[in-house]
Amino acid sequence: MKYENGKVSELKIAYIGGGSKGWAWALMSDLVQADDISGTVYLYDIDRKAAEDNKLIGQKYNEVEGAKSRWEYEVAHDLKTALTGADFVIISIMPGTYDEMQSDVHAPEQYGIYQSVGDTVGAGGILRTLRTVPMYEEFARAIKEYCPTAWVINYTNPMTLCVKTLYRVFPEIKAFGCCHEVFGTMKFFVKILQQYYGIENIQREDVKVNVIGVNHFTWLTSAKYKHIDLFEVYKKFCAEHPEGMPQNADDNWMTLPGKTTERVKMDLFKRYGYIAAAGDRHLAEFCPANWYLDNLDVVKEWGYGQTPVSWRIDAILKHRIEESKKFISGEKPLELRPSGEDGVNQIRALLGLHEMITNVNLPNVGQIPNLPLGAVVETNAIFRTDEVRPVAAGNVPACLYSMIARIVGEQEAIDEAAAERNLEKAFAVFVTDPQLKISLKEARALFDEMVENTKEYLAEYLQK
Amino acid sequence: MKYENGKVSELKIAYIGGGSKGWAWALMSDLVQADDISGTVYLYDIDRKAAEDNKLIGQKYNEVEGAKSRWEYEVAHDLKTALTGADFVIISIMPGTYDEMQSDVHAPEQYGIYQSVGDTVGAGGILRTLRTVPMYEEFARAIKEYCPTAWVINYTNPMTLCVKTLYRVFPEIKAFGCCHEVFGTMKFFVKILQQYYGIENIQREDVKVNVIGVNHFTWLTSAKYKHIDLFEVYKKFCAEHPEGMPQNADDNWMTLPGKTTERVKMDLFKRYGYIAAAGDRHLAEFCPANWYLDNLDVVKEWGYGQTPVSWRIDAILKHRIEESKKFISGEKPLELRPSGEDGVNQIRALLGLHEMITNVNLPNVGQIPNLPLGAVVETNAIFRTDEVRPVAAGNVPACLYSMIARIVGEQEAIDEAAAERNLEKAFAVFVTDPQLKISLKEARALFDEMVENTKEYLAEYLQK
Amino acid sequence: MKYENGKVSELKIAYIGGGSKGWAWALMSDLVQADDISGTVYLYDIDRKAAEDNKLIGQKYNEVEGAKSRWEYEVAHDLKTALTGADFVIISIMPGTYDEMQSDVHAPEQYGIYQSVGDTVGAGGILRTLRTVPMYEEFARAIKEYCPTAWVINYTNPMTLCVKTLYRVFPEIKAFGCCHEVFGTMKFFVKILQQYYGIENIQREDVKVNVIGVNHFTWLTSAKYKHIDLFEVYKKFCAEHPEGMPQNADDNWMTLPGKTTERVKMDLFKRYGYIAAAGDRHLAEFCPANWYLDNLDVVKEWGYGQTPVSWRIDAILKHRIEESKKFISGEKPLELRPSGEDGVNQIRALLGLHEMITNVNLPNVGQIPNLPLGAVVETNAIFRTDEVRPVAAGNVPACLYSMIARIVGEQEAIDEAAAERNLEKAFAVFVTDPQLKISLKEARALFDEMVENTKEYLAEYLQK
Amino acid sequence: MKYENGKVSELKIAYIGGGSKGWAWALMSDLVQADDISGTVYLYDIDRKAAEDNKLIGQKYNEVEGAKSRWEYEVAHDLKTALTGADFVIISIMPGTYDEMQSDVHAPEQYGIYQSVGDTVGAGGILRTLRTVPMYEEFARAIKEYCPTAWVINYTNPMTLCVKTLYRVFPEIKAFGCCHEVFGTMKFFVKILQQYYGIENIQREDVKVNVIGVNHFTWLTSAKYKHIDLFEVYKKFCAEHPEGMPQNADDNWMTLPGKTTERVKMDLFKRYGYIAAAGDRHLAEFCPANWYLDNLDVVKEWGYGQTPVSWRIDAILKHRIEESKKFISGEKPLELRPSGEDGVNQIRALLGLHEMITNVNLPNVGQIPNLPLGAVVETNAIFRTDEVRPVAAGNVPACLYSMIARIVGEQEAIDEAAAERNLEKAFAVFVTDPQLKISLKEARALFDEMVENTKEYLAEYLQK
Repeated sequence: MKYENGKVSELKIAYIGGGSKGWAWALMSDLVQADDISGTVYLYDIDRKAAEDNKLIGQKYNEVEGAKSRWEYEVAHDLKTALTGADFVIISIMPGTYDEMQSDVHAPEQYGIYQSVGDTVGAGGILRTLRTVPMYEEFARAIKEYCPTAWVINYTNPMTLCVKTLYRVFPEIKAFGCCHEVFGTMKFFVKILQQYYGIENIQREDVKVNVIGVNHFTWLTSAKYKHIDLFEVYKKFCAEHPEGMPQNADDNWMTLPGKTTERVKMDLFKRYGYIAAAGDRHLAEFCPANWYLDNLDVVKEWGYGQTPVSWRIDAILKHRIEESKKFISGEKPLELRPSGEDGVNQIRALLGLHEMITNVNLPNVGQIPNLPLGAVVETNAIFRTDEVRPVAAGNVPACLYSMIARIVGEQEAIDEAAAERNLEKAFAVFVTDPQLKISLKEARALFDEMVENTKEYLAEYLQK
Repeated sequence: MKYENGKVSELKIAYIGGGSKGWAWALMSDLVQADDISGTVYLYDIDRKAAEDNKLIGQKYNEVEGAKSRWEYEVAHDLKTALTGADFVIISIMPGTYDEMQSDVHAPEQYGIYQSVGDTVGAGGILRTLRTVPMYEEFARAIKEYCPTAWVINYTNPMTLCVKTLYRVFPEIKAFGCCHEVFGTMKFFVKILQQYYGIENIQREDVKVNVIGVNHFTWLTSAKYKHIDLFEVYKKFCAEHPEGMPQNADDNWMTLPGKTTERVKMDLFKRYGYIAAAGDRHLAEFCPANWYLDNLDVVKEWGYGQTPVSWRIDAILKHRIEESKKFISGEKPLELRPSGEDGVNQIRALLGLHEMITNVNLPNVGQIPNLPLGAVVETNAIFRTDEVRPVAAGNVPACLYSMIARIVGEQEAIDEAAAERNLEKAFAVFVTDPQLKISLKEARALFDEMVENTKEYLAEYLQK
Repeated sequence: MKYENGKVSELKIAYIGGGSKGWAWALMSDLVQADDISGTVYLYDIDRKAAEDNKLIGQKYNEVEGAKSRWEYEVAHDLKTALTGADFVIISIMPGTYDEMQSDVHAPEQYGIYQSVGDTVGAGGILRTLRTVPMYEEFARAIKEYCPTAWVINYTNPMTLCVKTLYRVFPEIKAFGCCHEVFGTMKFFVKILQQYYGIENIQREDVKVNVIGVNHFTWLTSAKYKHIDLFEVYKKFCAEHPEGMPQNADDNWMTLPGKTTERVKMDLFKRYGYIAAAGDRHLAEFCPANWYLDNLDVVKEWGYGQTPVSWRIDAILKHRIEESKKFISGEKPLELRPSGEDGVNQIRALLGLHEMITNVNLPNVGQIPNLPLGAVVETNAIFRTDEVRPVAAGNVPACLYSMIARIVGEQEAIDEAAAERNLEKAFAVFVTDPQLKISLKEARALFDEMVENTKEYLAEYLQK
Repeated sequence: MKYENGKVSELKIAYIGGGSKGWAWALMSDLVQADDISGTVYLYDIDRKAAEDNKLIGQKYNEVEGAKSRWEYEVAHDLKTALTGADFVIISIMPGTYDEMQSDVHAPEQYGIYQSVGDTVGAGGILRTLRTVPMYEEFARAIKEYCPTAWVINYTNPMTLCVKTLYRVFPEIKAFGCCHEVFGTMKFFVKILQQYYGIENIQREDVKVNVIGVNHFTWLTSAKYKHIDLFEVYKKFCAEHPEGMPQNADDNWMTLPGKTTERVKMDLFKRYGYIAAAGDRHLAEFCPANWYLDNLDVVKEWGYGQTPVSWRIDAILKHRIEESKKFISGEKPLELRPSGEDGVNQIRALLGLHEMITNVNLPNVGQIPNLPLGAVVETNAIFRTDEVRPVAAGNVPACLYSMIARIVGEQEAIDEAAAERNLEKAFAVFVTDPQLKISLKEARALFDEMVENTKEYLAEYLQK
């Protein structure tokens, strides 16, 4: 890494999961739009072909009109090569295949348990966690060995447990987890401000929020735009739009099927007085099953949609594979547009090129005093040269504490179960999840079946 | 109060709810069995006749064979008279009448929600709390005014919220809450020890346990009898008795209908590795509805019973009214036997007559480091002259944290709702309870109905 | 207060101590340089003439070339008038007169105790605190009554105890304390960066520091300018300048007699590896007497100077009185230049006009996890619309903990002594201060003498 | 270990420092007075001859009239032999020889620094710590390897740092530190109670105290004998005995030269309102140099004495060597009397033979909420089968916080310095100690000299 004339060159970024279609392209696009950093991205992926393809795409980004910096791309065949000497490590993997995801999301349906995403909590989230943790243990050990002072940015879900595992294995790691769900709520405010006040050209970052909670179940305890208290605006909006948003505030490419009406969020606001800041699809999964996910009709009533794995495959994956080919062949030209993600700006802040405040996932060192120390929580943090410092978010309000502490407990317990490769402990957590509305006997059958379905990734658990 | 020759005389004990049939008699009996304390008990009760009757019964206890000390009884017509100059205050009231209790326990049944006790958590517990808190605020203010240095012992349920309210209103209060549920588990160990080891004459107090949690959802993280690790013994017992206890370990008069088989407790142990230390009836109510309380058949399958209010009235209340008359008339002679309660021994310890360690409910000052400070928790404490100091119970284990923190959160939130007389906040808590397995709409209807049923006691809430 | 077109008008600022010569003028100058805020400043001062003079001067600032906004000035004859409806309250008073200050700073010299400032800790700081706390209790009560939602900015020393008293009396107050001492160290870095790297036009704010400690004994655990680690630069500077700075980094009008060489700071850095961020005059007073303040020769050796009260009177006070007259008469024209203080920018941030991160004094809510909750500490905080949130500063490093926790303890104890108006408790703190290198008997004599000297302001203590 | 009929046999106790004259004999004597435990003590000592001698003496104790149990003694030539299979480990060593102790205690005198004991804090305590920590790291590693579930009782000074090192190296260790200093204060109360109330036959254990602080600077925040508040009694005693105790309350063989008058303790009580509970010799060393240790005349004035190393050698060591010979030869018969130490009773409690509450040194898990977690503190704890649980001691009172937090900080910093074998860090701590009343330059010279004097034990530090 070389710092000269306000620019940093010769950066090395290791990208674990570098064959990713989606996150990787967003990063590539954001990188060439930053005029003050340049370097090489090492793409590591167990799907080497995907990494090779992305190398070609990445190189092409340098040629897109409007590119302000130049980035080289290398395919790394092992973690050692990818990580050695890295200044930054980005992790965005898919733990397992769509087959495992199919089991995560849909196996519970035979018991009447419907999940809108199934990657964070609930039956699907827990099984996904069990197979992800061993992978992250390996990453953490490799980072400790090959680039212990690198900054590590995680995008993979289950976010909380990925970050937790990194810190558990290597407590001195400089890692944090990023998620765009809060941004969606901020953009929602931007829309409301336009509607009510006619204010144009507001950037998402102009909305100032205090974030508290855990990933995908984050809440705002204050939200302001300049002097405007957005809680008041939101209250008015809710009163005037009992049917919710006509369309989703967040319409970027990462939004999954169906626009949401934000009605789950508005219902929570009405009852708790705080604003939940994640997509309704995620929020619903943290609540009791009988609220928003009792069956698919209820989901529909609440104005959002389930994300079936078939859709992920048919509408997203196939489309992206097609796109990838066309990008490489040149049939489809690459375009530059801001991804809306914070990653590149965070990198720039950590290099001292600017300062920023944004929400990230970090172990609790007191930023939320009434949650356990060491649990991974999501709050604002300031980003400066080589440091990320959480901002004091305050206590979780009394009315939310039960719901948030419950999930923190579930996550700490699944961390313990996964660390010990202990399926019985995992089952004990499984049945306490508020989505698991079935009897203990049925829950056992479901758990066993989901383990069986994904056993290829649970070998270390099954040996015990 | 006078201390002479190792004895304390001229004690003043104020008994709020002094017309109680049951708790009051147990106290009277225990008092005269203590040879080193004597004094006067001031009985205060809104049912003045009941207090008058208890005065007569109390006086008679002095004459029972085996009585070692003498106690006077006075009926106090107001709190001021009862409390002024009191050394100890005992509170054991019934908040509301059996009509309200009928609503608490049985109104939810029309929605398929069954409660085994309904006085602590869940729909019934929450409604009971709403009407109890204002009463306890009054007690706290009166204690602050008339006897600020008295020790206050609470027996009323909801235990946690009663103690919380006392401390919220008068933070310097010297109060704690006592409950015999943990003792039941200790006696269960006594039985197992007899069965496996043939050890006779073990006292409940000889079993040494580390208690952690909240009232009625207390857990043991260690249990020993001398050198014997009772966790190992318990594990063996569970393996050898898949159908549970042939009969209940705790067969004193306070055990409500039906003997329990301890199967809920054993099921929890199998899954979590720690021993839940309360009656199965209580434990079940803290767990998801689908585990042990899905319907009355499930209750039966798990080998315990619901406590219907009709039984409380027919089997308990009527019987005791009859008994009371007979005690007064002399038709039925009073007898002395240890109640198994700790109250009188705690009083003796606070007077410096001996030292003891037992479990009580107190605000968290760090005895459970991973629960919020100020929340009322149940752990061991040492009792010495004029002090009760909690013992460091350690962190709630990861696998239990979700379930325990959830209820702590629920209780802190209901405290806030009750303090503000805010029914909307109360409803927000109501729907998060894991027993409320119904839709939000149904929950609203049920809540409104339960409020209507008990509105006589919720006037301050309804004015808002 | 009116918000329109990105500007706020009709602000009401109450200035307690509004007759101040120095701080008040700096504020007036900064106010008219801000183009997006305007309103009225209510000047309250027990020296009403001084407030009247400042009203005239304040009005004149509107006419100075370069003034971008207009501010009205009113003299308030009582706190009620000053505070009612205030949006902001600024407090900058002199507690007592120069006579009391004379005793604070110089009375201890007869016992060989020399103080460089004498307004924060040590014999002088403690006596000053005793007379300041009752005044701040009055301010807090008045703010609670007349403008409970106003933001309160304190500039008075002893900073820590002033802020502590405000929060003790009115826990919901929105108050913080500001001090420019850390800025001095930041400017020192600016100078070094120019010297070593030839970088010009660096603003103090471009230096990014992590601040930890208590006011006047604040430490930096990291310091960066862009990618440059200023700890490395500082280390080099210390090695190359064993005699310290040729002249002081901080040469604004508030710097008291003599330029400092920064040698105290450099000596501390050499030994502890962290950078103390306050003037040497302040730092020395927090260290054992034998280090830097054993006698005036030692002071001189370490390259800094004592601030005698005579100098404050002769060089500062008289000069300013003269200046005040000339400003009013027009003999001396007012000039606009940035004061270097953060106050006006903080006000703008709290109004939502921009966002900033700066160091302030606030009760510890966990920003420094290993110091007691509730103690007033100095760390960074983010300023946004109507909120100031501390940034997690991390634990006090082990090597500094003894020195910092000691002073925190001293301040918490003097708070208790002052709150109770208890001179015996105050004496108990007095003798533990590390500057009090005399025998217990001498300390008693000194304390009694200093109380006698300032008894006019200690009436409530002496009645006890 | 075998448990039968309420007795435990075949215990294995490893005694590190088993050649000790004094502590070892006290243990031997206490062991044979316990009728319910028996087994073998493995004596390990770098002075093997001393261990051999103690083996002979230990065996003889079995024959003393009144011996109720039988103990075998073995000399272990290495830690592995001593520790393998041990149920308990006792550590009581002298770190270094009397030469090093001579330097610790007396080298500072040439700079006018007088120490009454010199083994805990101050110049002597710090140097002693530096050579002790590496030894304790070795013990901790060996315990982890050979007997990880054994209970470890430490008697060596510096107590706090010995216990800290054990936990730092092996966090799961079951270790605690015991010290009889608090007992001395309890015995003092026993004497006062006899004097004022004529109560005879009070046992030290009948006095109930709440202990808070760090070893040798422990304080009582409450003290009761039955209903009697000993703070009131103590206050009366202090008023009536301005010259202190006619003779020391604690006259057992471990009291070093000169009886103390308790005047230091009484002076502290008068000022702080809490009772310091350690010998005056220890207390004085935690206070500023100018209070009680300014010179030997001051020491005398305060009615206590320094413990010169020459006295340790001449009066204690020589006497004991002589005694040892006589014990072995039979010239002097062994006698049984209670040592007053808690060790054997603690062992019995940990075996489940009884329950006890006593003060011990343990890492802070919240027993003192306003001191840093992990710091070793002294409070009460309950001892039960295989567990030691601290009792909530409450916050350090405001008036004591400065003095106690300061020393906690010093100890945490010296732990870091020693762990890193970093003499510069050690020096940084050295100069902050309140006894180091000399200039920085002199302090440097003294430190270097003391390092030189004890360099044989500081090799690992000097290699750096």
